[in-house]
Amino acid sequence: MSLLIKNVTAITMCEETRVLENAYIATRENRISYLGTKKPEGTFDEVIDGHGMVAMPGLINAHTHTAMTLLRSYADDMNLQDWLFQKIFPFEDTLTPEMVYEGSVRGIKEMLSTGTTCFHDMYFFQEETAKAAEELGIRGVLCEGITDPVLEKKIEKTEKLIEQVKKSEGRLQVGISPHAVYTCNEDTLKTCADYAKKHGFRIHTHLSETKTENQDAEKAYGMSPTKWMEQCGLFDNPTMAAHCVWLSDEDIAILKKYDVTVVHNPVSNLKLASGIAEIPKLVNKGVNVALGTDGASSNNNLDLFEEIKLTGILHKGTSLDPTMLPAWEVLKMATINGAKALGFDDLGMLKTGYLADLILLDFEKPHLTPNHNTVSNLVYAVSGADVAYTVVDGRIVYCRGMQKPKFLSETL
Amino acid sequence: MSLLIKNVTAITMCEETRVLENAYIATRENRISYLGTKKPEGTFDEVIDGHGMVAMPGLINAHTHTAMTLLRSYADDMNLQDWLFQKIFPFEDTLTPEMVYEGSVRGIKEMLSTGTTCFHDMYFFQEETAKAAEELGIRGVLCEGITDPVLEKKIEKTEKLIEQVKKSEGRLQVGISPHAVYTCNEDTLKTCADYAKKHGFRIHTHLSETKTENQDAEKAYGMSPTKWMEQCGLFDNPTMAAHCVWLSDEDIAILKKYDVTVVHNPVSNLKLASGIAEIPKLVNKGVNVALGTDGASSNNNLDLFEEIKLTGILHKGTSLDPTMLPAWEVLKMATINGAKALGFDDLGMLKTGYLADLILLDFEKPHLTPNHNTVSNLVYAVSGADVAYTVVDGRIVYCRGMQKPKFLSETL
Repeated sequence: MSLLIKNVTAITMCEETRVLENAYIATRENRISYLGTKKPEGTFDEVIDGHGMVAMPGLINAHTHTAMTLLRSYADDMNLQDWLFQKIFPFEDTLTPEMVYEGSVRGIKEMLSTGTTCFHDMYFFQEETAKAAEELGIRGVLCEGITDPVLEKKIEKTEKLIEQVKKSEGRLQVGISPHAVYTCNEDTLKTCADYAKKHGFRIHTHLSETKTENQDAEKAYGMSPTKWMEQCGLFDNPTMAAHCVWLSDEDIAILKKYDVTVVHNPVSNLKLASGIAEIPKLVNKGVNVALGTDGASSNNNLDLFEEIKLTGILHKGTSLDPTMLPAWEVLKMATINGAKALGFDDLGMLKTGYLADLILLDFEKPHLTPNHNTVSNLVYAVSGADVAYTVVDGRIVYCRGMQKPKFLSETL
Repeated sequence: MSLLIKNVTAITMCEETRVLENAYIATRENRISYLGTKKPEGTFDEVIDGHGMVAMPGLINAHTHTAMTLLRSYADDMNLQDWLFQKIFPFEDTLTPEMVYEGSVRGIKEMLSTGTTCFHDMYFFQEETAKAAEELGIRGVLCEGITDPVLEKKIEKTEKLIEQVKKSEGRLQVGISPHAVYTCNEDTLKTCADYAKKHGFRIHTHLSETKTENQDAEKAYGMSPTKWMEQCGLFDNPTMAAHCVWLSDEDIAILKKYDVTVVHNPVSNLKLASGIAEIPKLVNKGVNVALGTDGASSNNNLDLFEEIKLTGILHKGTSLDPTMLPAWEVLKMATINGAKALGFDDLGMLKTGYLADLILLDFEKPHLTPNHNTVSNLVYAVSGADVAYTVVDGRIVYCRGMQKPKFLSETL
């Protein structure tokens, strides 16, 4: 498979090039074979005229529970304990592999159609999510959620998953997901840490999502969830910690020391009333920050462009400083920072030799003209619905093309 | 013109009916002639099969500066003073009527395509915005922004605008817009108040958007902007006050006393770092709250569904209470509360006899299935891009229809 996109505005996410107008992007097999302003030589299986479109690296949704699309709008506007124990957990007790497959298909279609090309998942029956991901062509790192008390079985499931994803041409990988300090006891956390170290896996966990989580950890362990995870050896492995709403300066120093990535989920954190993570402070301290949607039951969609915009505006509003987290920094969180967190050194930028995961956005819509600043528009004006093509590993995996809806003054 | 929508899920925004499944909605001329679950008699010029779609009243964008689409992404991530005085105001000094017309066309197209059927505008050259609105068929209340020192000319422009909108079959109305306490002196505010009273106009203004505005008013007048506006007689007219981020309890009592509507613009308030208006407190005190996008230079789009979602989640996050502002209350702000604020008693609900302003949303997209709760999904999962049809005064003014994009597992 080879693909040529011509005459496109490319947002490369490289600090050196940033924006390339009238660019050509060529892919051969699953890599970007050329990026520049001269027409590349050779023939291509497919050519897309990128006039009126903007290309950028595919987005990386660094924390989600894809199959929870099944629970979208199932329970909202509720107290957190009631939400979890009266609605979400009882529903999840009825889940079957078939249901998780169906939920995963919907969730992956939603992600591909809104610009996400790589997702970092944590849920049950991950073999079904793997199957859906393989069919739909998305890239992902899949983690079977691990909670007490049935640890061995879940480690077994992870081992089966490792076998299964070998068929995916490298698009799918496996990680280890001890769910959180409040659902995993000391033994579970330490076993996960050891297992990850033995197999070279990355850790995917929840950390300091709510104030209650912190208070309970203080009671149980006499320390913050961050310190407790450090003490259990989790951070001796590359780790992505979702939420991190309630961190002390000491916690932040620990995360920085171990190069733990914080995954910011601003929509979920607001909707569940968890609070607002201090992202500017984390960025300032040099912590790697990526973005996630969380599951569709607490968001309630998987359009990462919403997280991008909210991250871009929320911290300005709470700090009363409109220069906080400028557009470019936020776009990095959704692309290169996510790639780095997942251990890729060839993903998250448009660059020759990098994996050919990219999206094309239709910039001829009324709300994107005039276009004084493409980077600003990608953060503050675009929605996921502006994505016209999604490419993963050099294959077009989603296509809507350029839309021409009708207005009264035209020919209705 | 007559229209029949059959087999649709109707969110009526009436407290009594709320959600009607398998509903028929009929319109004749510019009114809803039938709403119910039996097929209405008679023939219709146009029939839409609403299977898989959701109908609701068209959204009301209660505060915007439509032609500022011209300034979208022109200046972002900047200090407020630099933004205004180095970028926005110098650009606006170069505006011509032709530019305002072009900007208005884009903005109105954007609003119609994202579900807004009525807008409350404040800007320059409103005769051009009126022309664009008339061509595109949207409903609106237009207000020429009034600032010192050229008051008479602006009152004259308003009088011309009144003549112009007489051609619009009632779809366009005129209001009076003293811009704010920091751009209008005492004489200007009082003249606007008197003029509105004489002609029976509504007032559209900015109020307590920033902390600085409050501090400056205290210095200049020894009181809050709210008290000063009350003293100048503005609130003796029906008034819509945009922003209201920095209100004291005394200010809130004044707004309640005069039945002033507060227009909440959460995206703009965050992006410009103005702060977060205390909407739950206002609602609790019985103040009417509507929603607005503000202009595209501080948002940067006019998709009111973003304001709906952000209002639904932001105040949960800041109060740490997930039951705050439930979905139904937020939808009211975007529909019936906006209608009430603009003086309509026949707009903002799907109800027989009401104005036929409504939207149909495509609920067959991956991110809207399964649909456990339509009201929740309208607030937390939908984006403006899900709007398939927009109807104003019984006319289809925007049409995209149901979309079927392609995925890899299908027939790419």
